[in-house]
Amino acid sequence: MRREAWIFTLGNEVVDGRIVNTNAAYLGRRLTLLGLEVFGNISLIDDVDLVTQFLRYVLSRRPGLVVTTGGLGPTYDDRTLEAVAKATNRGLVLNEEALRMVREKYESAGMGLTPEREKMAYLPEGAEPIPNPVGTAPGSWLSLGDTVIVSLPGVPRELKAMWEGFVEPRLRQLFPGVRLVERWFRVVGVPESSAAAVVKEVLKLVGGRSLYIKSHPKGSETGEPILDFYVSASSVDEDPEGLVERAVKELIERLKALGGEVVRSPSEEPD
Amino acid sequence: MRREAWIFTLGNEVVDGRIVNTNAAYLGRRLTLLGLEVFGNISLIDDVDLVTQFLRYVLSRRPGLVVTTGGLGPTYDDRTLEAVAKATNRGLVLNEEALRMVREKYESAGMGLTPEREKMAYLPEGAEPIPNPVGTAPGSWLSLGDTVIVSLPGVPRELKAMWEGFVEPRLRQLFPGVRLVERWFRVVGVPESSAAAVVKEVLKLVGGRSLYIKSHPKGSETGEPILDFYVSASSVDEDPEGLVERAVKELIERLKALGGEVVRSPSEEPD
Repeated sequence: MRREAWIFTLGNEVVDGRIVNTNAAYLGRRLTLLGLEVFGNISLIDDVDLVTQFLRYVLSRRPGLVVTTGGLGPTYDDRTLEAVAKATNRGLVLNEEALRMVREKYESAGMGLTPEREKMAYLPEGAEPIPNPVGTAPGSWLSLGDTVIVSLPGVPRELKAMWEGFVEPRLRQLFPGVRLVERWFRVVGVPESSAAAVVKEVLKLVGGRSLYIKSHPKGSETGEPILDFYVSASSVDEDPEGLVERAVKELIERLKALGGEVVRSPSEEPD
Repeated sequence: MRREAWIFTLGNEVVDGRIVNTNAAYLGRRLTLLGLEVFGNISLIDDVDLVTQFLRYVLSRRPGLVVTTGGLGPTYDDRTLEAVAKATNRGLVLNEEALRMVREKYESAGMGLTPEREKMAYLPEGAEPIPNPVGTAPGSWLSLGDTVIVSLPGVPRELKAMWEGFVEPRLRQLFPGVRLVERWFRVVGVPESSAAAVVKEVLKLVGGRSLYIKSHPKGSETGEPILDFYVSASSVDEDPEGLVERAVKELIERLKALGGEVVRSPSEEPD
């Protein structure tokens, strides 16, 4: 399966800035560490047609994975699975297993089913419910051959429990064998506009499709420049460790020649 | 001009989760408070073609405003303005005023121009540079008649300085007269799946195109339910204050009838 992945983080409260989108960062990180290549994260308001349009657009690229968060609950604006169903030209149907999950949750609390509670058991036709150990709304795993669409709730602790307990173990089987290597280091004394030429040169010299170098300016470009460098490579067929080690060595050599000083040595952790 | 707005937060580090996207929340909030309706936030990797495609798609909706962040710096992957130029079918040209801004920054630090520094003065044809009081890369203000495209750096303190000092005062003139009213309150004892029917009922009863009600579950749906309610209305022609006040009153009445207790009274602040 193709390693291209997309994330949809849905909900008015994400788009209008009432909350900071930590789900996007969490999923982006987990997917990258699994060796998937996340191309984008799309946050949209709770509008079924709009979500359907963007899903269709992204699905036309035939990515290996699409993850959606938000819009699975019992309220009037929780309509993500309707959009997933529409975008994949199938119905939204009552799923017996999902209904059993929902019913058990409420019954064990002495509560019965209502239309709003039953609503959470409607999944796109052919989807499998993902158990929710924390809340009540099941997730949805829809396999389309080339693409898997995983839909999870937006509440972070539900999302994380379902991701780590169910989704990620399955994805490891679907996308095996990739190794991601990362290094962070910090250099003072070289403005980013001077480092830019060095980075270009090193990328060309070391080669490697998956090699990625990024400088993050932390100080003042024209005062006391501080640059945090991030170097990574992730591959099944290249040697990511070798690529990263060589790139870091070449970068540091050239940055020192420009008067740079390494104040934080290459490390596998950002800080 | 139409009040539909879109945000593009660009950069590999946003998409792969190395950073949490606080820029999206900041801009979403500022735009909402200005009375614009943000429809979505799109984060993409640094791929000119991909960014161009999504910009084209969004521009075809003829929104009033598109804001991009990231990709204005001196490095090889800073290519946002190239994508803006492509998506609007114009060239990327050396802007004399932008060049003057960039040159002054470096000259005042005793540094000359290099190709990487000069690169930051290339703007889409017809764009106006936005001064950057904190860093070196100017922003870009491109007015297309129906749509304004504002491009700003991704470094948060540069983004904020340019937004508050230059962009927002201009937007206030372009989009005058909207008033946003918001209330937050907290209710314990009612599960979200029961509140869902109440919310639907109140939305219908009170009416108003811009009225928006959202419950955020904080406790346990089947254990000790806690719901944070958010009610807002934002309009030039409706009475947003009246809509919100009535909706809050009707909600609380009904939630109390279901055994709910208001533990945080309606307030203009989330906490």
